[in-house]
Amino acid sequence: MVEQRAYLDWNASAPLRPEARAAMIAALGQAGNPSSIHREGRAARHLVDDAREKVAALVGAEPSEVIFTSGGTEANVLALSPGALPAHLLVSAIEHPSVRSGGRFPAECVEEIPVAADGIVDLAALADLLAARSATGGRVVTSIMLANNESGIIQPVAKAAQIVGAAGGILHLDAIQAAGRIAVDVHTLGADLLTLSAHKLGGPKGVGALVRSGGGRAVVEPAIKGGGQERGLRAGTENLVGIVGFGAAAAAAHGALAAEAARMASLRDRFEAGLRRISPDAVVFGADRERLPNTTLFAVPGVKAETAVIALDLDGISVSSGAACSSGKVQASHVLAAMGAPTDLARGAIRVSVGYATTESEVDFALAAWLKFCNALHKARHGIAA
Amino acid sequence: MVEQRAYLDWNASAPLRPEARAAMIAALGQAGNPSSIHREGRAARHLVDDAREKVAALVGAEPSEVIFTSGGTEANVLALSPGALPAHLLVSAIEHPSVRSGGRFPAECVEEIPVAADGIVDLAALADLLAARSATGGRVVTSIMLANNESGIIQPVAKAAQIVGAAGGILHLDAIQAAGRIAVDVHTLGADLLTLSAHKLGGPKGVGALVRSGGGRAVVEPAIKGGGQERGLRAGTENLVGIVGFGAAAAAAHGALAAEAARMASLRDRFEAGLRRISPDAVVFGADRERLPNTTLFAVPGVKAETAVIALDLDGISVSSGAACSSGKVQASHVLAAMGAPTDLARGAIRVSVGYATTESEVDFALAAWLKFCNALHKARHGIAA
Repeated sequence: MVEQRAYLDWNASAPLRPEARAAMIAALGQAGNPSSIHREGRAARHLVDDAREKVAALVGAEPSEVIFTSGGTEANVLALSPGALPAHLLVSAIEHPSVRSGGRFPAECVEEIPVAADGIVDLAALADLLAARSATGGRVVTSIMLANNESGIIQPVAKAAQIVGAAGGILHLDAIQAAGRIAVDVHTLGADLLTLSAHKLGGPKGVGALVRSGGGRAVVEPAIKGGGQERGLRAGTENLVGIVGFGAAAAAAHGALAAEAARMASLRDRFEAGLRRISPDAVVFGADRERLPNTTLFAVPGVKAETAVIALDLDGISVSSGAACSSGKVQASHVLAAMGAPTDLARGAIRVSVGYATTESEVDFALAAWLKFCNALHKARHGIAA
Repeated sequence: MVEQRAYLDWNASAPLRPEARAAMIAALGQAGNPSSIHREGRAARHLVDDAREKVAALVGAEPSEVIFTSGGTEANVLALSPGALPAHLLVSAIEHPSVRSGGRFPAECVEEIPVAADGIVDLAALADLLAARSATGGRVVTSIMLANNESGIIQPVAKAAQIVGAAGGILHLDAIQAAGRIAVDVHTLGADLLTLSAHKLGGPKGVGALVRSGGGRAVVEPAIKGGGQERGLRAGTENLVGIVGFGAAAAAAHGALAAEAARMASLRDRFEAGLRRISPDAVVFGADRERLPNTTLFAVPGVKAETAVIALDLDGISVSSGAACSSGKVQASHVLAAMGAPTDLARGAIRVSVGYATTESEVDFALAAWLKFCNALHKARHGIAA
């Protein structure tokens, strides 16, 4: 008997796409080092080049603009190069920890761009910060998420690009959660640098990319030195199998983008409608804003996320409490704190994120588990049952 | 018809072991992020923990001493942390470029330890350098290869550890080429830090580890920040499939170490005996020193490595000219230069490296191709044939 489960935590990590799986298995037999000049080396190099074209195509970039890394976190660290000082970094209050930590900028050179209650980066504040910095001189790098990993809220990055460009600054976009779920074009968006992660779009964990727009205004200092790989920007023998999987996943996601987005939005809406029926007091964060089609971040007053996530897991439903990206600890979300959400409510935040392969029956299964959990909580509180 | 080929470039990258292949294919189905607390996350975490035990066992370490990285190059960069300055780094003249570049030490804080004509690090010079540094104060890190990637020559690292320890310094060993081919025990060797790479021992490309001896004297500053993975020393979602493959390869290599070493040595000796019959003037570098059982670095006066490697490749034999680790360019080896080899001879250096799965017929096939190449060269020079 196969126990029924519904994996609804695609923003933490998406299952491998079948296309990625097949390409990776085929690549397991490639012994060559892509830097070797013999036949096996050239065959491995060809696989890397092919994957580079596919990843580039996903975001409207040239293959030469793609720098493969060991993941989104490394790509963010690579993106945030201070170069010759003085340099300054502006990061929004809702960025991933790898951006909030400032990459290789000294802590005293990092400033935070506030976020409004609706979860949108405050562009007027960004303009003010840029104006203040242009008065003091030096390079300024601004880093904003294209879509937030917890709430799914899409940021006005094209407008941010205009503001940053007018101030002569550099714009880095963390597109990890957006790519493969909504259309992303690095040049249309006006980004100088853009981060991707394979495993959020159905590729393997442990591979990502930094896309550097050909304009070449952005300084990228290698963080890992000691070899000529990736045009001298990222040393070390390439993660061949991982890169191949990334390429295959990117191509699959790109080809099916509109259809998958519509399907995910329908599932997301089905979940949210069911949630509101069961828990009329549920707060869905960013419900009235433009969001990724696959993400619901919600809280119900009086329900602790930790309790809910564990109860749902026992009932076969995998979701997360806010962003459980590295620690496994349940702590109040910095994203919701930045939005000014009450701490009690933020501690109840549960993220449900679907994918292209999620089914209606999985959503219904999750809703049934949620109803069971709410009933049990109600009974426990009213002393009817333990 | 399958064209016959002999892949004799295992030091550049080894074919994936069957055990690693099987484990990786099994792991492709794991959707969970190892940091997630639900069942899929815990299953992924379990796979990482299991691989960590296997990698630790290969080098006599505790699992908690293993820090997974994206490969040997990143592990070397992670190892070479200056920490609070003043700090100084001593690297031998035959180290890999990722060590020679000094990791994160400022260039002015890096000094070179010379190497004698026999390819062995000059321990008296090391002692002198340490004494000079202990007079000026500050931490000193010494980085030495356990076995050289080009020549296979094994370094007297246990003696180096005594010298470094007596001076109160930190010892980092790059064991990338040694691990899985000779016995390596981080504690017996007296290393504070030790670098491993999966793909040199039959795991996948793009994964490695830094082993930090529990003594904890060594400072390891994260190079990639923004997440709590690897005990806070290396942020980013784990390369799950790669780590699983690393673990399986480490276990397989560990279990078969003595048998594989004997087999490789026999094949290496067979190749060298044949080589000397065909080219009596061949110089085998380090032939009279303790070497890895699988590596032959040789040159024949008047034969250019580039010409030979290309001709052999066309005839189905994959070897390399010195270390073609990142550039694909054929350039004189810094290892042979450090040994004082004449430049002309060094430009002819060809590396033949076998593995546990290499066969006698592959060696004989390579020798036949070498004979054909030498005959063609002879005829071309003497005008008999083009």
